[in-house]
Amino acid sequence: MPRTADNARKRLMEAALELFAENGFEQTTAAQIAERAGVTERTFFRHFPDKREVLFDGQAILGAALSNAIAAAPPDLPPIAVLRQAFNSVVELFEQNRSFSEPRQRVIAASPALQEREVAKSMALMRLLADALRRRGVEGQRATLVAHAGLAVLGYALTGWFADAAVPLREYLDRAFDELHHLAGPDMSRGSDGEG
Amino acid sequence: MPRTADNARKRLMEAALELFAENGFEQTTAAQIAERAGVTERTFFRHFPDKREVLFDGQAILGAALSNAIAAAPPDLPPIAVLRQAFNSVVELFEQNRSFSEPRQRVIAASPALQEREVAKSMALMRLLADALRRRGVEGQRATLVAHAGLAVLGYALTGWFADAAVPLREYLDRAFDELHHLAGPDMSRGSDGEG
Repeated sequence: MPRTADNARKRLMEAALELFAENGFEQTTAAQIAERAGVTERTFFRHFPDKREVLFDGQAILGAALSNAIAAAPPDLPPIAVLRQAFNSVVELFEQNRSFSEPRQRVIAASPALQEREVAKSMALMRLLADALRRRGVEGQRATLVAHAGLAVLGYALTGWFADAAVPLREYLDRAFDELHHLAGPDMSRGSDGEG
Repeated sequence: MPRTADNARKRLMEAALELFAENGFEQTTAAQIAERAGVTERTFFRHFPDKREVLFDGQAILGAALSNAIAAAPPDLPPIAVLRQAFNSVVELFEQNRSFSEPRQRVIAASPALQEREVAKSMALMRLLADALRRRGVEGQRATLVAHAGLAVLGYALTGWFADAAVPLREYLDRAFDELHHLAGPDMSRGSDGEG
């Protein structure tokens, strides 16, 4: 993509986020976004199918980066360690996009329709992670379980980091994996009655 | 609810599931469901707002049962053990409904719109579990992490059980929690490089 098109895309994303935050997602039109970005409405639709997709632009890049990292991990690594390594490999990607993704969370939290879309995208990412694990030989349903748990950890880390970036994302990830180990460590779920 | 109304509701659910499986969800109308169940269309709409909700009828009962079980668990139980106990307490509910919920899975798998709804309902259940844990004093985001991991385990167990009911659901749940402990046990995610 030529540099100017790339700039237009970035300007459109910034303009959309501003307008969504100022006036609400429902009240904002593609035409308004184009106007604020200083491009035509036609240019908007060359970049995005609709105003909603402006908010989900990074998902494909994230998915591809994670998929590649999972494929490239050492063959004998346990599946959850593979995800941990993969998440660490995209920390920089998250850091570069924080000025977009942090306010984006608030726009999404304010709209039930966007929340439903976010959940659907997150399930698609879960399936992508599970598929990537399966290609490493992790058994079908176990891959889904690991991908689910891994995404829960990533979400936990990101929530902390969006609330307070004084601590680096990598440390939030370490803490989140530690939490998972603590909560799910051997015998933790059996409680005091020895059930199971 | 009087006995006859209860029967009509049950008949409507069975008729809907049959028709969805035979002709597809999109192609089936509320009128057809009412006809097969031997009631009027008006009776259908006294029980359900639309044909989609017929498939999500059990969610409120499940949510309430889990919420109560979480509240009633011994105060010193670790959060994941609270969920394990709560899931075990609804095994009978799942068993009673297997003849509906097992074919229901296949109907949902065949329709992207129903899948999106299922995911949204599952997120609502996740929030309900997290809220119930918070009322026990589990810290905000940690409650979300535990609820996520717990639901991943429940989904893993149910998938196995829907595929083969020769093994009781309780045993699938035990296996699924064992898997979680194994995959997420201390140091599992650090792999061989000592990272973290």
